[in-house]
Amino acid sequence: MNSPQQILFSNDIPASLDALLSDMEPAGVFVVTDTNVERIVLPGLGLDCPVIAIPPGDSHKDLSSLSAVWERLVELGANRRSVILNIGGGVVTDLGGFAAASFKRGVRFVNVPTTLLSAVDAAVGGKTGINFCGLKNEVGAFAPADGVVISASTFSTLPPAEMLSGYAEMIKHALLSSAEDYAGILAFSPLEGDEDRLLGLLSSSVNVKRRIVAEDPSERGLRRALNLGHTVGHAFESLALAGRSPLPHGHAVAAGLVAELVMSHLHKGFPTSLIYPLRDFIKDNGYMLPAFTCEDYPRLLALMSHDKKNEKAGSINFTLLSAPGEVSIDCNFGPDEVSPALDIYRDLME
Amino acid sequence: MNSPQQILFSNDIPASLDALLSDMEPAGVFVVTDTNVERIVLPGLGLDCPVIAIPPGDSHKDLSSLSAVWERLVELGANRRSVILNIGGGVVTDLGGFAAASFKRGVRFVNVPTTLLSAVDAAVGGKTGINFCGLKNEVGAFAPADGVVISASTFSTLPPAEMLSGYAEMIKHALLSSAEDYAGILAFSPLEGDEDRLLGLLSSSVNVKRRIVAEDPSERGLRRALNLGHTVGHAFESLALAGRSPLPHGHAVAAGLVAELVMSHLHKGFPTSLIYPLRDFIKDNGYMLPAFTCEDYPRLLALMSHDKKNEKAGSINFTLLSAPGEVSIDCNFGPDEVSPALDIYRDLME
Repeated sequence: MNSPQQILFSNDIPASLDALLSDMEPAGVFVVTDTNVERIVLPGLGLDCPVIAIPPGDSHKDLSSLSAVWERLVELGANRRSVILNIGGGVVTDLGGFAAASFKRGVRFVNVPTTLLSAVDAAVGGKTGINFCGLKNEVGAFAPADGVVISASTFSTLPPAEMLSGYAEMIKHALLSSAEDYAGILAFSPLEGDEDRLLGLLSSSVNVKRRIVAEDPSERGLRRALNLGHTVGHAFESLALAGRSPLPHGHAVAAGLVAELVMSHLHKGFPTSLIYPLRDFIKDNGYMLPAFTCEDYPRLLALMSHDKKNEKAGSINFTLLSAPGEVSIDCNFGPDEVSPALDIYRDLME
Repeated sequence: MNSPQQILFSNDIPASLDALLSDMEPAGVFVVTDTNVERIVLPGLGLDCPVIAIPPGDSHKDLSSLSAVWERLVELGANRRSVILNIGGGVVTDLGGFAAASFKRGVRFVNVPTTLLSAVDAAVGGKTGINFCGLKNEVGAFAPADGVVISASTFSTLPPAEMLSGYAEMIKHALLSSAEDYAGILAFSPLEGDEDRLLGLLSSSVNVKRRIVAEDPSERGLRRALNLGHTVGHAFESLALAGRSPLPHGHAVAAGLVAELVMSHLHKGFPTSLIYPLRDFIKDNGYMLPAFTCEDYPRLLALMSHDKKNEKAGSINFTLLSAPGEVSIDCNFGPDEVSPALDIYRDLME
């Protein structure tokens, strides 16, 4: 956290990397990626440096991959003045970021997110880590990348479901920012393939997150605003996983945003007229939705109570809005106070 | 690095821990230690909290012990508001510090060094980590303990060789501080068993390190002053290890200090009248000395050139003094310029 983080927004990744790296004067550059990105994206970047590729997927964001990355860095002779380039989705930037932050007690690293979700979420903000003992991000560090290249140019190979997943986080950032940003984000569809417009929206979106993180890098308070949509969203995600019909993270978050805007309406006066447009956007773009009935409420509410961001036993911690951009963190409710919002959510989405 | 580090100097460890922990309001306290310290020191501290004990010795400062500590923390239900108490020597504070700094992206930790060497060196200054791939501290973090309790009350069970080892680092700090501190440190012997006088000297010594670290927490410049005695000392240590007659770290550093004061005399005018007292102190207290002849010079010089703090190939990086407290970092010399100092060192020590 010693020098400011440079974020470049550009659909020309090679030129941006040239600019970033020439400023950093590295003694050696080492790419960390996964084997899919290595095959699909790397050939187009024209990089000439050693590549360390881990197996793709969240199940490989583990100690064994981390240890393999450290080992290759040793073998390749990386030193304190080297730079690690993490090129990939959130698994790569989380794991590669932690590998860099801990190798020789910290070497510099640059993130090049190749999915929309990682561009808008994992690559910026300094949260790095691995899953451990079955728990997500149980081991890691708050370590911001020294540089980030945000680009829409690698998204063309992503399936629509993955574009929608990332876009849900952009909707969240817009809601945390202003009514104008919220209207703007719902007026575009990430499935249109317009890289230039998407890059413009990404730039606003990432800057919302960046402003919040700058005020609270290690998540002691304000940063919890970024949890909007995630208290209910994580519960939807876990319920779907337990029922063996996994729901992609961003799809669960999109549904979670609707549920938490309902909570915001009930407790903070968020206008219902601003909930319908999100509901319509989700339906029109074909987001996958969680399947649940009132019989699942006890399970869902238990999942919300056990979220690691809850510090008080039995209560559920929410970030709520009285309007777009008007944020209240640490709104705590008992399970009984959350059920009515789930009822209304179901009515809305039917 | 968000809140200032509290260091308490006291020969009453339980009272100091009470004071520190009541300020921290932890949700759970977990001890990390080794099985020797668990048996010898812990019963006297009257702590009532879960203990995670790793096997003793530097060979266990590894990924397998680290992973075991993380795993026990998960099993024991440690959370973000918990506090880890690292009680032990440098292996415990290095490994336990990194375990804490990375568990859930960082929980608070307190170091209680139980050896003189760790009290004056590892426990303060924020360097944490483990050995990896046969390399010392290859993986870790700069993460200062939130609190440190420095006490001489656990040293009575230490063998004399280990007391001397720690005291060499105190001599180094005194040399970096002032002529008065240097004279004071040589006027005492750590083998006398006077815990109160030793605690007083420890307090000055730790504060020298603390001042230097505060100005350069992540070792970009000034902190290299702490490398005094270590360029030659590490080479002595490695040579002895290769010859299968290991030399304890601090003993190698004591000899290294003499050699580097000779370098300081040759290149910075450090007065020889201040080298003899150190030579006498080392001989009088029975430090173990490296055994080498001029046939070992090429090997020693190669070891010095490969020290990880050297950034320029072929040159050897020294911290030198023109007088006690007058420090020049980043003095670079070729191997040929170092040999004469080794000759003079051998004359002096014979």
